[in-house]
Formats: sequence, structure tokens, C-alpha cells
Amino acid sequence: MPEKAVVIALGGNAILQHREAGTAEEQLANLRRAAIEIAAIAAAGYAVAVTHGNGPQVGDILLRNEIAKDILPPMPLDVCGAESQGMIGYLLQQALGEAGLDMPVAAVLTRTLVDGGDPALFGSPTKPIGPNYTAMQARGLEREKGWRMVQVPGQGYRRVVPSPRPLALVEGEAIARLFAAGVIVIAAGGGGVPVVGEGGGTLRGVEAVVDKDYTAALLARLVGAGDLLLLTDVEHVALNYGRADQQDLREMTIAEARRHLAAGQFPAGSMGPKVEAAVGFLDAGGERATIASLDSAADALRGRAGTRIRR
Amino acid sequence: MPEKAVVIALGGNAILQHREAGTAEEQLANLRRAAIEIAAIAAAGYAVAVTHGNGPQVGDILLRNEIAKDILPPMPLDVCGAESQGMIGYLLQQALGEAGLDMPVAAVLTRTLVDGGDPALFGSPTKPIGPNYTAMQARGLEREKGWRMVQVPGQGYRRVVPSPRPLALVEGEAIARLFAAGVIVIAAGGGGVPVVGEGGGTLRGVEAVVDKDYTAALLARLVGAGDLLLLTDVEHVALNYGRADQQDLREMTIAEARRHLAAGQFPAGSMGPKVEAAVGFLDAGGERATIASLDSAADALRGRAGTRIRR
Repeated sequence: MPEKAVVIALGGNAILQHREAGTAEEQLANLRRAAIEIAAIAAAGYAVAVTHGNGPQVGDILLRNEIAKDILPPMPLDVCGAESQGMIGYLLQQALGEAGLDMPVAAVLTRTLVDGGDPALFGSPTKPIGPNYTAMQARGLEREKGWRMVQVPGQGYRRVVPSPRPLALVEGEAIARLFAAGVIVIAAGGGGVPVVGEGGGTLRGVEAVVDKDYTAALLARLVGAGDLLLLTDVEHVALNYGRADQQDLREMTIAEARRHLAAGQFPAGSMGPKVEAAVGFLDAGGERATIASLDSAADALRGRAGTRIRR
Repeated sequence: MPEKAVVIALGGNAILQHREAGTAEEQLANLRRAAIEIAAIAAAGYAVAVTHGNGPQVGDILLRNEIAKDILPPMPLDVCGAESQGMIGYLLQQALGEAGLDMPVAAVLTRTLVDGGDPALFGSPTKPIGPNYTAMQARGLEREKGWRMVQVPGQGYRRVVPSPRPLALVEGEAIARLFAAGVIVIAAGGGGVPVVGEGGGTLRGVEAVVDKDYTAALLARLVGAGDLLLLTDVEHVALNYGRADQQDLREMTIAEARRHLAAGQFPAGSMGPKVEAAVGFLDAGGERATIASLDSAADALRGRAGTRIRR
């Protein structure tokens, strides 16, 4: 096993962008850009595990299920999440092969254990998923299925589900074993399919979404990676993001990151979980956490791009 | 690694039966029956790898893509196949956990290398997939997408795709490594996503279906399993199947199996590939091949049920 090891997390929105129609070719094209970076990182001597988001992809799968629901019974969210792991894992494997990697690649279908008592499972759900609905449809779904719906400005209504914290990867042993053997492992796509323990080995899938950045940090600890690289669609973490006085950050200490988080600098749905995941990873013994854009991944790992958070 | 090793192939129609609506719960219920058998086999000291068909499942995924096609671009067959590996792999992992297995389980997303020059890719396609269409729709799809369509008695028209022979599992190294480490590996679902080599590590997905029984035989050779167990929805291989003089077989030699195959005793779409895969497995050094029903798997492996084919 190489001395240097990194877990790379690809954003689901970087794999399928808002302005795109959602074809397999578009996703493959974006994954090819990621694969070039991953291949460069592997060629530099890193053992690599890759995880990825699945927001737009599972959204499209849910929408197809919804549109076809009078003909075919819709699959629950946990099954759709597993389908999205298959879809993205396959396309990423294909892209990595084209990028000329000379080590084996394997995608391991991953379930993520969450605590059945996690307050997120009982409080107000926070994570919007799937298609937009009209107000009337939303009321119907709340009544028929017990879904929680929220109004999203300019989009109509969307279903929201809980976002519990990941405790462990159920397939952790297999993932760690492959990683240690020099396989580029793709794991825990979409944060992993969330399951809760019910005693005696039985795990029940829950209709929830685990944030993939938290799962990435867990994966990094599992495989003993010194580096955690969280890739998204901006170049840097910024203070006062989107305002006239926006200030891009090249580096933060944990203390600074905590202070900015507490000050509400990083929004809950996007940069917040990334910075929190980075802080958690460093607290647990990780060496470096870097947040950067997809296309500057290799540079970011060398400290030449993105935002580095250090102990 | 245990001395005894088996590859178990589950039929896609055994996981989702024709009379069923197609819910996740129905599939999970069928997989629970399979999981009880698999757990009994593992408890008897076998190292186990599991593969499975995906006909009904990928059919439903294709149908959802078709129904939603005016809203979302449909995914090609290779991507839908990868999705079905995610779906079934996840449900099977859940079922195996409930069955009280005490070894780790991992599903590896699998691509199957086929020969770009395989005559099946150029001749008349044979494998029906996806939804039924009217004659007019069928003509339109032939014109617009270049699909090959066939009329199926009582069902209308269906798309047919080539069914090339599997050469190797692209993720073979990872699968073999996990198997040797005592992990119950789920691999090559639906026969694996078929890909052809294009030079320099690049693999191109093809819109084809590899017969999962042939891939199961390949998987058995890969992991060095002495036993190949092909599970379907009948108890025995039979001569004169469905006729008044039907004769169930408890045992066949390779020579007998070849003779019956040559006499057209086993239909192309169902028992034929199973018997051929069994013969190929034994020819390549396998010890025992058994064809049996899902619910008698453990008994069949002990030689107390099903049809055994021996050298």
C-alpha cells in the first residue's frame, strides 16, 4: 500500500449540472474530467478511494418513478439510492478506465449505518429530494404517503427527508480490504444507503439521505487516509459568499473554520457540511482536508489550489 | 478460505415473478427465501459468491425510462443494467443480513468484457428486453433509434438485443480477493454490464445482455469454486418439458447433457443456457453443476434435490 492515501468526494452536482438535460453522456463527460484528476493523483503515488454525491441522479430516478407510478409501483428512496450507486459507479469506472489508470477499480455497493435514535430522524426533515410538485400535489402526498413537503422559492414544493449522521459503513471491511490491496475503491455513493439496526443482523433501509461529505470523512478514517479532498463547483471556500466583499480563503485552521461555521458563514445545504466534515476528519486524526473544484483536484492536493484546512 | 466453494446464480424471474406487481417488498420477500438457503449453505462451510439475473428488474427500469422520456432523457441499456445491479444487490444484502449470516457481504458492481467481434453482436439479436410496444410504436423505434424489434405472441412487439458470450469480469481481481478473504460476494448481476475493449484501457458499454448463467460459470472458474448452483423456478431439468411424457432428470453426465442439448430438449431462452453453462463449467475443471429451484438450494447442493450434472 502506498504511503500516501486520499479519499476524494465528488459532488453530485459536479457530475450532473443544473443546466444539463441529464443524459448518460453528459454525466460521463463530467466524470471524465474528474477521472483525469484522479488518475493524476494515483500516478503521484496516492492510494485512492472515491465517493460521490447523487442528488441530481436520484432526483431523476425518483421523477421517473413518479411519472410511471400508474403503471409500475414506485421504488422507495433507499432502493433508488442504491440504483444511483449502480449508475454513477458504472460511469465512473468507465471514465477511470479511459483516463489510463493502471490499477484495478471496483465499486462497492455501500450501506451506511445510522442511529435509529438520531434526532434528525424525528425532528423536522431538512433535505429536499426528488421532483417539484404543485401545492395541490404536495397536499395530496402529505395526506397519502405521510411525506413532509416544503415550498422552495421559484420551484414549487419538494419532499424533504431527514439527514442523519453516518455511524459506520456496513461494507467497511470489504472496502478497507480492497483499498489496502491497491484497488481504487468507489464506495458510499450518495453518502451510502442509510440503514438502522433492528437487532440480530437485520438492517432496515430508511427514507433519508446521509450527507456524502460526512460519509467521506468516515470513509477516510476507515481506510486510514491522511488526506480528505472534497470537490465541488467552486474554487475556494469563501467568506461573505456572493456579496461584494466576498473573500476567498486559501487556508484555515480548525479554530478559524469553527469560528466561521458558528458565525453562519457557510450555508447548511452546501459549504457548511463540507467544512464540518473537514473539521471532523482533522479532529479524528486526519492530516489535511482540502475543498476545491473538480478540475483543480490534483493541484489542490499539492496545496496549489482550493482551500486547505489544517490542524 | 473454506475448502468448499460454490457460486450460486439466482434467476431474475425468481426474484420478481410474473404475477407480481414489481414492488421492492415483493422482491425483498423472494430474496429472503433465497437468503435462507444461502445462509444454510454458508453455515455448512461453503465459501459463497452469488450472482443473479435482472430481466424483470431492468425491464421495469427501461419501462420507467420510456414512460418519462418526454421529461427526462432515457438512460441506455448498459446504465439501466448497472442501476439494476444496485437495486438487487442492495435488497439481497438486506435479505442476507436478516438471514443471520455471520460473515461480511459485499456487492461489487461488475462489468463483463465481451469480444467486439462476437458474431452475436452482428447477427440477428435474440434477447428480448424491456416493455411491450404496439406495431406502430415498434416501427417508429426501428426507424428513430435503429432498434431491432420482434413480435412476441400475445405480447405485442419487444426490443431484442444481442447476447454475446462473456470473456472475463473486468472487476475480477477485486471479486476474487474478497472471496478469498471470506466475504460473501455478490457480483455480475444481470450477467454483468457488457463492455468491449477499445484499446488503452478504454471500455465501451454495449447495448446487449450477457446471459447470467454463462457469467456465473465464468465467476465460478474465477474464484475456483468446485460447485456451480443455478437456481430457477422449476425443481428439475426435464426431457419433453411440458408434454405428457415429461421426464424429470435427477442426474446427467456431460455426454448426456450434450446429447439432449443437440436434440433441442432445452429451450434457448430458459433451460438451454443453464445446461450449456453447466457443461462449460465442468469442461473447464468444475466438479459439480446443479440446477434446482430457489427453495431447494441447500438440499440440491447436498445432492438431495434438483438435477446434478457430473463429469
